[in-house]
Amino acid sequence: MELWEKTLESQTLFEGKIVTVKLDQAQLVDGTVARREVVEHPGGVCILPLFDDGTVSIVRQFRYPFQAVVTELPAGKLEKGEDHRPAAIRELAEEVGVTCGKLTYLGCLYLSPGFSTEVLHMYLAQELKQGQCHPDADEFLEAERVPFSQLLAQVLSGEIVDAKTVALVLKTRQLLDL
Amino acid sequence: MELWEKTLESQTLFEGKIVTVKLDQAQLVDGTVARREVVEHPGGVCILPLFDDGTVSIVRQFRYPFQAVVTELPAGKLEKGEDHRPAAIRELAEEVGVTCGKLTYLGCLYLSPGFSTEVLHMYLAQELKQGQCHPDADEFLEAERVPFSQLLAQVLSGEIVDAKTVALVLKTRQLLDL
Repeated sequence: MELWEKTLESQTLFEGKIVTVKLDQAQLVDGTVARREVVEHPGGVCILPLFDDGTVSIVRQFRYPFQAVVTELPAGKLEKGEDHRPAAIRELAEEVGVTCGKLTYLGCLYLSPGFSTEVLHMYLAQELKQGQCHPDADEFLEAERVPFSQLLAQVLSGEIVDAKTVALVLKTRQLLDL
Repeated sequence: MELWEKTLESQTLFEGKIVTVKLDQAQLVDGTVARREVVEHPGGVCILPLFDDGTVSIVRQFRYPFQAVVTELPAGKLEKGEDHRPAAIRELAEEVGVTCGKLTYLGCLYLSPGFSTEVLHMYLAQELKQGQCHPDADEFLEAERVPFSQLLAQVLSGEIVDAKTVALVLKTRQLLDL
């Protein structure tokens, strides 16, 4: 089967600080025309900082869309023109005050490919040194170190629901046989 | 640390077929006011249909935001007022032509909690019967059955990048010890 869609028209509805929203008209394989809602996002990084003692840095922050505090691995958006490896190093320092000797790329995630361009790059950070956090001015978060085994149990029980955290914890478990 | 943000104003910028885009003003813990871009999404389901012969149904479809064909587990949006269990049964039938005797809930995912309200519910489907697919009119996709071991290898190598597929394959691997 042929699988393609051709853009006929594209209209920018909103250019925000984080997302750009577009409404396109696309021609489908059978010749019909369908509307496509697209949310453009700069993408980001997520890091699993694994200390020699078997603990992992996690963060808790208020996530406005859910009006709730969500537990996640350290993560952040790419800044304009920024590569994902330096972004991972920056977010580690900002969010959990950690510098690392070893940073291993563990692949990327398309978070919501039906409507969003967001790509998230995953890293495992090792050979860590713990320092002080210095989050962005409008970023309020709590950092904590928990045993990897506890984090894995919370992912498997469904207590941790953040998609990038679930994927990166389970991928690390599988690849390192932790 | 207190973690909260209080909505001061909310403006709907776009009401689409799939997403609603809002721009809010929120008061932060320190009293400052920040803008919050929110993409509301109805949420969805993702299903891992595991046959007795160890194969899994996957689908390939053109994902417009990436202008590329993406390999995913069967999935779909919730319809208005629809619960996620019947949605999983419906999507299994529509996308891969499968009916199931056993459907196990494996928890949910917040796909992009920084800006999106999307929640995805994961199911493992077993005791399956293969029939004919009947996708929606504007949905063009290829369904295939592949060994679970192949799917797991593609997740671990980074060849499969769809977040819900990565999370659900790895969670199933861990819970069933496959």
